Amino acid sequence: MDHFIFYNPTKIVFGKNETENIGNYIEESPCLMLYGKESIKKNGIYDKVVSSLQKHGIRFIEKGGVKSNPVMSFVYDAVALAKREGIKSILAVGGGSVIDTAKTVAAGVMYDGDTWDFFINKARIEKALPIYTVLTLSATASEMNSGAVITNEKTLQKFNINASVLFPKVSVLDPVNTYTVSNSYTAYGCVDAMVHLFEGYFTQSAANTPIQDSFVEALVTVLIKSTKNILIKPDDYESRADFMWAATLALNGLTTAGIGAYGFPNHMIGHSLSALYDTPHGASLSIVLIGWLKYQIQQDNYRKIAQLGRAIFGLSDKDLKKTAMDAVNSLEAFFSSIGSPVRLKQINIPESDIDRIASNAVMLAQKWQLHAYTTDVIKKILRLCYE
Amino acid sequence: MDHFIFYNPTKIVFGKNETENIGNYIEESPCLMLYGKESIKKNGIYDKVVSSLQKHGIRFIEKGGVKSNPVMSFVYDAVALAKREGIKSILAVGGGSVIDTAKTVAAGVMYDGDTWDFFINKARIEKALPIYTVLTLSATASEMNSGAVITNEKTLQKFNINASVLFPKVSVLDPVNTYTVSNSYTAYGCVDAMVHLFEGYFTQSAANTPIQDSFVEALVTVLIKSTKNILIKPDDYESRADFMWAATLALNGLTTAGIGAYGFPNHMIGHSLSALYDTPHGASLSIVLIGWLKYQIQQDNYRKIAQLGRAIFGLSDKDLKKTAMDAVNSLEAFFSSIGSPVRLKQINIPESDIDRIASNAVMLAQKWQLHAYTTDVIKKILRLCYE
Repeated sequence: MDHFIFYNPTKIVFGKNETENIGNYIEESPCLMLYGKESIKKNGIYDKVVSSLQKHGIRFIEKGGVKSNPVMSFVYDAVALAKREGIKSILAVGGGSVIDTAKTVAAGVMYDGDTWDFFINKARIEKALPIYTVLTLSATASEMNSGAVITNEKTLQKFNINASVLFPKVSVLDPVNTYTVSNSYTAYGCVDAMVHLFEGYFTQSAANTPIQDSFVEALVTVLIKSTKNILIKPDDYESRADFMWAATLALNGLTTAGIGAYGFPNHMIGHSLSALYDTPHGASLSIVLIGWLKYQIQQDNYRKIAQLGRAIFGLSDKDLKKTAMDAVNSLEAFFSSIGSPVRLKQINIPESDIDRIASNAVMLAQKWQLHAYTTDVIKKILRLCYE
Repeated sequence: MDHFIFYNPTKIVFGKNETENIGNYIEESPCLMLYGKESIKKNGIYDKVVSSLQKHGIRFIEKGGVKSNPVMSFVYDAVALAKREGIKSILAVGGGSVIDTAKTVAAGVMYDGDTWDFFINKARIEKALPIYTVLTLSATASEMNSGAVITNEKTLQKFNINASVLFPKVSVLDPVNTYTVSNSYTAYGCVDAMVHLFEGYFTQSAANTPIQDSFVEALVTVLIKSTKNILIKPDDYESRADFMWAATLALNGLTTAGIGAYGFPNHMIGHSLSALYDTPHGASLSIVLIGWLKYQIQQDNYRKIAQLGRAIFGLSDKDLKKTAMDAVNSLEAFFSSIGSPVRLKQINIPESDIDRIASNAVMLAQKWQLHAYTTDVIKKILRLCYE
């Protein structure tokens, strides 16, 4: 096990109908409530949140319209609004897109310069308004971590920020809120959470991490099982609850504590697909992961892939390379079974775009210091996403 | 999964020689440094801590002599000292006994009445000085939770407190500090951590908890394996590191979040053994657990015990009751192999003392609202601790 610092002060309030208690936790008024589509007005979440805020005397203004793959133009508008209205806290009612937007706004309000400065390392986030969340889509774990990802539509960059002041103060995880999540977004959420686990598991520098390995394997197992159940019965409370908590634990620092250096190479390429083609994040990841794993096996880097195959899919072939290849096939079959794409051609991106995608991805490779990922390597992985 | 609130703001600084950085984290001076035996002066931990405090300009006074099964008389002296010296933070250098003492002192300093009031529900802990820890013995997880257990020597009560202000602000987990822990205390620490996991696992009210079950089974597996390695090679860094992090995760709220109502019946009886006979905490628990598990099987409450046997010991008998009995035998064999006792007669407590022990334990049963544990039930369990 390697050195680590683990720190996660977010309070999680988990359970059926806890949404009705959100007002009990917010201490700073007025609050800016952010959300995405109007669907939260149809499914009743909006009304529950608003009546809880009113019940607890929290003054608030609201701004809807955060889109998936959230963008800077919305952030700029929200920061201006929050400054104008003297906002003291931000409440995100939504999934990762809304929460990431809320974090960015919370930091932007406390900064005089251009909020995008934080994303291009021109400024450091030292202060932020307190952030609260009511989660409506499980995938990114943004509800219990200190990161955010936003796309700058002008520069076509999907970049990230991270700062300890961005941990939400309280996040309400009410599985009932996810009953109306569509099958495709449930699948994408599953892929996203799984790839969060895999990025650390497959790229870590520490050799001996039995606790972390077991936790990853346990969470992946739960994600697979609960997703299968949810696609058959969207209001299966126990499965929605297992899925929700597993997705949160998949990127809250627990499974990566002690694994040493690790990277997010699949996210790096996936982000480019989202920035260029607005591909849903999870859909981009199921495609990239399969290509990336095949590339790892080609590079004789298959021991951990085989370990996953044994732990998750019960594979038992003595040949580790064979086991690793079978594991990739099993993962691919699972992704296909839940309706998440596994080849770039399935989302109609022509093979002639490989150069364009690689040029975009290599910007993130540089920002994230993934020096092994040259344009050439990224192109090789992208080619495997067509085979 | 049941409703839960998860909140754990302790910052963990984990790794080889991180002890030398403790001064970097303490923000409040002067600090009261508490420790137990003089052994930390022999093994170099004392010098590392003191030079780090000096390097970072932290003024401090020290008070050694905390005993295992820590007592109120020490707490009273330390509270008086801290008040007299205007202490602003507490640093515990030690294991659970020292950390629990530090927490109690941290609360006691901020209270005008008798510190024992907190233990008998006569007063609530609302404020405490900031607490820092350098862990030297892995077992109780006090380094990452908000509880403490102290024995009142006058009333022979081993009682507990819990309050969110008692979470340590920063805990340094440096596996090197545990190289000199004796085989018997390594074994007791292993038992303590395992029983923390088992209390929730075996007594929980929620039926469906695959994440939590897997985490418990993973941590127990790591504890068993790392303990075996450590007893052969006490300075095996990787095993000490796995053991240390597993023991911390065993009682930091993670494995119990979502499992519903649960109790600490084994600790309840174990605490009485420690209060009456000064039995090491871990030694009391390995004895009580075996008797308690046999009692559960007698009561036809064996499904989860069988699940553990399958997950940990690879048992595969189709008969669940048989599997559960085999699991208890496997656990007993493991405890014996690491030198932790499994029968009361091994620690020379005569069977004629059962009434006395039960009368003491039933006080905690009432305090902890474990209403099923009447004197009669406790006596039955104690009798099984002789068979």
